[in-house]
Amino acid sequence: MPDAGGGDATLRDVTSPAPTPPEQTFDWLDAEAGKRGDAGLVRQLRPRAAGDRDLDLAGNDYLGLAKDKRVAGAAAAAALKWGAGSTGSRLVTGSLELHTELEHELARFCGAQAALVFSSGFTANLGAVTALSGHESAIVTDKYIHASLIEGCRLSRADIAAVAHSDLAAITHALSTRRKERALVVTDSVFSVDGDLAPLPELAEACRAHGAALLVDDAHGFGVLGDAGQGAVHAAGLAGAPDVVTTITLSKSLGAQGGAVLGPRRVIKHLVDTARSFIFDTALAPASAAAALAALGVLRSEPELPSRVLTAAGTLAVQLKDAGFTVSLPDAAVISVHAPSPEAAVAWAARCAEQGVRVGCFRPPSVPDGISRLRLTVRADLTESDLDTAVKVISSCAPAAS
Amino acid sequence: MPDAGGGDATLRDVTSPAPTPPEQTFDWLDAEAGKRGDAGLVRQLRPRAAGDRDLDLAGNDYLGLAKDKRVAGAAAAAALKWGAGSTGSRLVTGSLELHTELEHELARFCGAQAALVFSSGFTANLGAVTALSGHESAIVTDKYIHASLIEGCRLSRADIAAVAHSDLAAITHALSTRRKERALVVTDSVFSVDGDLAPLPELAEACRAHGAALLVDDAHGFGVLGDAGQGAVHAAGLAGAPDVVTTITLSKSLGAQGGAVLGPRRVIKHLVDTARSFIFDTALAPASAAAALAALGVLRSEPELPSRVLTAAGTLAVQLKDAGFTVSLPDAAVISVHAPSPEAAVAWAARCAEQGVRVGCFRPPSVPDGISRLRLTVRADLTESDLDTAVKVISSCAPAAS
Ligand SMILES: Cc1ncc(COP(=O)(O)O)c(C=O)c1O
Ligand SMILES: Cc1ncc(COP(=O)(O)O)c(C=O)c1O
Repeated sequence: MPDAGGGDATLRDVTSPAPTPPEQTFDWLDAEAGKRGDAGLVRQLRPRAAGDRDLDLAGNDYLGLAKDKRVAGAAAAAALKWGAGSTGSRLVTGSLELHTELEHELARFCGAQAALVFSSGFTANLGAVTALSGHESAIVTDKYIHASLIEGCRLSRADIAAVAHSDLAAITHALSTRRKERALVVTDSVFSVDGDLAPLPELAEACRAHGAALLVDDAHGFGVLGDAGQGAVHAAGLAGAPDVVTTITLSKSLGAQGGAVLGPRRVIKHLVDTARSFIFDTALAPASAAAALAALGVLRSEPELPSRVLTAAGTLAVQLKDAGFTVSLPDAAVISVHAPSPEAAVAWAARCAEQGVRVGCFRPPSVPDGISRLRLTVRADLTESDLDTAVKVISSCAPAAS
Repeated sequence: MPDAGGGDATLRDVTSPAPTPPEQTFDWLDAEAGKRGDAGLVRQLRPRAAGDRDLDLAGNDYLGLAKDKRVAGAAAAAALKWGAGSTGSRLVTGSLELHTELEHELARFCGAQAALVFSSGFTANLGAVTALSGHESAIVTDKYIHASLIEGCRLSRADIAAVAHSDLAAITHALSTRRKERALVVTDSVFSVDGDLAPLPELAEACRAHGAALLVDDAHGFGVLGDAGQGAVHAAGLAGAPDVVTTITLSKSLGAQGGAVLGPRRVIKHLVDTARSFIFDTALAPASAAAALAALGVLRSEPELPSRVLTAAGTLAVQLKDAGFTVSLPDAAVISVHAPSPEAAVAWAARCAEQGVRVGCFRPPSVPDGISRLRLTVRADLTESDLDTAVKVISSCAPAAS
């Protein structure tokens, strides 16, 4: 940040606003709220009750492990054994053997040299993008990458080229016309809104042809794709590659909270020394770390879980398509169903909720293309009857125009 | 982010680097590691074991509640009742009645209209700074604010003036010479490195005189300052003020994980609709939310806890000063002891650890002023004998030159 406090005041267009009554300081927020209201973009938090029996097609608990007794039980045991919080940054007093064990197991499972656990997938992405780029770097991204990666790019001080969605030629072009020698290509594996897959092998090839590193956010691929849930990077044959770094979250397939970066050992060491969202953040709570570790154990012992997710997603998408909706054909657990407007999407989701089916509703600004939609997710533990119910309720609640 | 993918390639200094062998892509990291090594700035994670019996003067568990049975027990019970993870963003399926209850209780305790829980103090700061500023705003900050606030400023697109530490006149000058009408002053209440207090009443007055809002990060004040731990903002008479917003973390005095923003209801609504680190992040895990709630209950039922922290801090600081060290006189729970160099600080901390006393060691780039130091923190449950041991060990392990 630039220094200030004196000097160039005479050069400025000095406004020096008059004192405002304190009650009016935030009046501008009401104006903003009014605009959002007019555009149908006001959000409402709808807290779940503990006994909630809705059919959940909105969460990211893809393997159905968040409430699994082995996983929740491990969380509970860890809180009692290690305490409720880690009490400090990983670099000070917050690193527990539990974190180290989780890192070891994640790396082993995914075939990476090393791993580093963060307090969230969000902060893992901030850390990975910023530490692996910088003023000396170019970053080339797909426009539709997750918001946390975008924030990382904004923080990076790198030259940023955000190209059209799923446009390999545009990525290659941006790589070959960059002004900085060092380059990082940043992508989601499974894009979070439509659930479509990035062409990882081709991206890796393009990176190699142009001396760039590849950073893949596998938040929605890990636990769902690959032979047994090792994720999209593994499925693309890139596990352990010396020029590829993967981020994952512990909050989706592993049913817990937290994030991790997987990659070459020197990348992980670099993150420990330089990633500000790692250094200046309290370490992940013991309960969450232990839950993720237990969930990984379940995944390892039940390697058929990921394929159940894919089957459920395929079934639901085909049935919705047959029912006449504009549906993305899922590459993983996420299905997107177009809605005619933000208001229609909100009303549609609300009607589904009234019928006991919880669906996601994505609207601007949470969608990169401006298209409002229902976002459905499936879980390994959905039954055929759950899927039937889902299709029936979504169809009967649909807006006229869709 | 700017669009790219074509067009102005001819105007660029095109380097188009030759293909690199993938093994060499990250060679630059080794060069960077070498530089850090030469400067004595390589970090080592030292995981704690579960049975660890060290005297901990490094964590931020100020009230000693992380391992309290009521707090850890509440975390365990919540994992079993609600599941290990919240399974989604607060806006989709991740909001639980548990979060709502915690928000209600935090707001009530601190005297704020409303509160919003985030997955960390880090993301709470990102969300508060970015959502309350923007391209149309000026931000004026103390140079020594926490890294998460700095990242928020960098993301904000606002005009940023970061003025000298604890320099009210510089803040006022920057406010009065800003180019944007809307303004936000951003400060820590208790600065995280030296533990010194910001002049909150004077800052609020300066803000009011210049039509600015005030954002206070009370991470190290909440639970420690105020009549009964309501924090520095409350102690400054600013609780419930219509132009003041407070962020706290649940990972220090409350012994858990997570963060929160407290303020006027319209600010909280604005955050729900616009804060990207809230919208695009999985909700706080049930165990952490329940632990924070239980810790708040303990604090309410034992209002003498905060004063025990202050007494312990004062005692330790005076004794270290008497022993000849350069010590900050603590305004809260944090004490800073200067070390002659990064290497000396590391060696000092390591010798203390060998003697069973865990102290923090802050070096560049984690210190804003370039001065390496031991950073000590106290807890409500430290005994006189703990403090004696601390002084003895720190003295006997001190480097010759300090
Ligand atoms: C693609 C993607 N990356 C990162 C994240 C952030 O992970 P977390 O919620 O664990 O912070 C999410 C979702 O929240 C996501 O969908
Ligand atoms: C002043 C300050 N603000 C914010 C944070 C971030 O909070 P958290 O660790 O809960 O992310 C910290 C410490 O970690 C801090 O010291």
